[in-house]
Amino acid sequence: MGTRAGIVVTGTEVLTGRVSDRNGPWLAEELRQAGVDVGAVLVVGDRPDDVRGALTYFSSAGVDLVVTTGGLGPTADDLTAAVVGEFQGRPLAVDTELEQRVAAIVERLMARRGWRADAEATAAGVRKQAMVPAGAAVLEPVGTAPGFVVPPADGRGGPVVVVLPGPPSELQGMWPAALAAGPVRAALAGAGEVRQETVRLWGTLEAQLAATLREHEAELAGLEITTCLREGELEIVTRFAPEAQPAYDRLGAVLAEEYPATLFSTGPTLDDLVADALRDQGLTIATAESCTGGLLVARLIERAGSSAWVLGGITSYANSAKEHLVGVPGEMLAEFGAVSPQVAQALAEGARARFGADVGVGVTGIAGPGGGTPDKPVGTVHLCVVGPSGTEARSVRLPGSRTAVRERSVVRALHLLRHLLLGGPPA
Amino acid sequence: MGTRAGIVVTGTEVLTGRVSDRNGPWLAEELRQAGVDVGAVLVVGDRPDDVRGALTYFSSAGVDLVVTTGGLGPTADDLTAAVVGEFQGRPLAVDTELEQRVAAIVERLMARRGWRADAEATAAGVRKQAMVPAGAAVLEPVGTAPGFVVPPADGRGGPVVVVLPGPPSELQGMWPAALAAGPVRAALAGAGEVRQETVRLWGTLEAQLAATLREHEAELAGLEITTCLREGELEIVTRFAPEAQPAYDRLGAVLAEEYPATLFSTGPTLDDLVADALRDQGLTIATAESCTGGLLVARLIERAGSSAWVLGGITSYANSAKEHLVGVPGEMLAEFGAVSPQVAQALAEGARARFGADVGVGVTGIAGPGGGTPDKPVGTVHLCVVGPSGTEARSVRLPGSRTAVRERSVVRALHLLRHLLLGGPPA
Repeated sequence: MGTRAGIVVTGTEVLTGRVSDRNGPWLAEELRQAGVDVGAVLVVGDRPDDVRGALTYFSSAGVDLVVTTGGLGPTADDLTAAVVGEFQGRPLAVDTELEQRVAAIVERLMARRGWRADAEATAAGVRKQAMVPAGAAVLEPVGTAPGFVVPPADGRGGPVVVVLPGPPSELQGMWPAALAAGPVRAALAGAGEVRQETVRLWGTLEAQLAATLREHEAELAGLEITTCLREGELEIVTRFAPEAQPAYDRLGAVLAEEYPATLFSTGPTLDDLVADALRDQGLTIATAESCTGGLLVARLIERAGSSAWVLGGITSYANSAKEHLVGVPGEMLAEFGAVSPQVAQALAEGARARFGADVGVGVTGIAGPGGGTPDKPVGTVHLCVVGPSGTEARSVRLPGSRTAVRERSVVRALHLLRHLLLGGPPA
Repeated sequence: MGTRAGIVVTGTEVLTGRVSDRNGPWLAEELRQAGVDVGAVLVVGDRPDDVRGALTYFSSAGVDLVVTTGGLGPTADDLTAAVVGEFQGRPLAVDTELEQRVAAIVERLMARRGWRADAEATAAGVRKQAMVPAGAAVLEPVGTAPGFVVPPADGRGGPVVVVLPGPPSELQGMWPAALAAGPVRAALAGAGEVRQETVRLWGTLEAQLAATLREHEAELAGLEITTCLREGELEIVTRFAPEAQPAYDRLGAVLAEEYPATLFSTGPTLDDLVADALRDQGLTIATAESCTGGLLVARLIERAGSSAWVLGGITSYANSAKEHLVGVPGEMLAEFGAVSPQVAQALAEGARARFGADVGVGVTGIAGPGGGTPDKPVGTVHLCVVGPSGTEARSVRLPGSRTAVRERSVVRALHLLRHLLLGGPPA
């Protein structure tokens, strides 16, 4: 492919996992849509040598563009601008007009939050943020930090470096200005279109798919196919240049032929399928959750506009809540236990009745690490969905940690909903 | 510092953000505890050149150890073992005994899930996973994929490469065996102890802290201090060798002196402080959530053993649910609107009463992007906590996207809880 870029994520807090990086993937997708091939994201700590090493890595790899994120704050460990300036042969100097604009922003911010800070300290932080590599284009702050577009100094080779702040909302707000900057436009001028398509299977083994792909290898030339198995969903993502569209069409046909019992989507995510089905069919939904403890309803509500179909949910973690708030009969809890198919169904029916919803979902199980018995080991989960067209129930034993069991239970519940609402491959 | 390592995360699905990487941070923390300095995590797609480039990068940087994750599955895009073997001068060959062990695992797995697959395809996938670099130590599979410890071929220099599978549970399960392998033990032999301490402030500006650190710079030699501002919390993480303990003690004293009104933790996270307080004080809790839609109760339940203090929650997204399930008076909803301090308090009291909990939390707000009015713009959130010792309420206008408003609301609610239960810096 033509134009290539690298992404450098800086921040010891990202490197050590205290903050999970959302910028690398976001930028990779934006660049892909601009036709740019991103081969790597390099996460480094807040040390000059490590940031310099990252720039050297991508420069040696011959990329056209490097995007850095983070390290633009007012503290001493925020050193991206200085390292990039030095790397590109463009020493830093204070931009006094920018300094005034940043000062005004910081002042407003502090007033709004009612925070006080030493005036001298604040001024020093502002001045640091207004240090600009000579000849770089300034990207106006979205938060308090400006970004920069830093081409190599005249007569030098190497990639254009775009320096962006770490907070995702600031970075994303600044991105259009970065794309519009002259040196970035020039670097992207040669980029061609890269298409990306996704097919999702539920319950096919990766090895089986590998055999199918091997068998049809000759017909699929020009496709970059990656597969990822996650919570039972096999996601097949294919990237290709427009010329390879016929090969992709062939792949789509092969998958449809070979996997009619597991192919549940040729694009939309599971969450989108369920949300669209509820919206399109004019149905409302409510949940009663035990082990998933609100994760399912929180996920249903993630989508903007979901108030049109999500009425709410009850997290009935305690048995008394199952009985008094959802209406699970006390005798049923006593006879079958809280973790039972009977209670899952009573939760689904209770959620439906209490909220007056068209569809009710009940989930009960043992997420662990404690609470398991020989009869009902950790990972035992019962799920039930009840809607106008009937009832679907499923009992599973899920592997993994407490977090994994809870997350997998949510995925199972969504597949039950998908099948109840849309038919297709079984849940 | 002495021993240095690099981490290579492979997988186009990670590079493009379809899966967020949990392995890099986990390994960085494990290696830190083993006294190893990790300067970078390099995320690359499933392409041989990119994986090779990553190994070259760390090798040139002179690290002692490289850990790779992912790319050990049965499909053609799983190529880590082959690339590492080639890089280390150790060509692959089938280990027939390993092949049999992997085959048995795959068979059991398929039987348990009730999946069928073409026998020949499965066998090909198994054989691929049993290809071992000559002279490498095999790490027994935790899932289906074995891992490897691959030292450079005799007479070659360079780092030892540890090859681990991508699924976090498999990687973590295999890690003790990797650490115990001879070449890894040898590489880590020179590692000294690295300590790490964390201080958390709520409501101090990063610029202010920067000034404090500059002022005391001379006393803090030997400390690697990184700061991270996130949702209003300023997290200060310091790494140091044991010799620098006095400098760290000085830093702790300086922070305690300068920031008595915002320093809320010298270690535990906000979540841990709240959970420990509930447990230690023998209090139960329940929530009634609108805009956060279950996120708060799900977060309270994240911790194992939380069933001892979390009774549950009601996600009352619809007004009818607020009224009929939580007991918010209809007249109150009509007079003040669902997003009001009055309703937040009624939600908190309702949650407490309905679940019979000691502490109730109510959250109501407008997460957006729609639903805002001039009077109540997007981001308006009212929170209230009610407990045996009284009531605390807060009304805020939060910036950011729908997801950001929901997450920030949860953090605000946790700070209100912290202050209600523990006193200390205001919420």
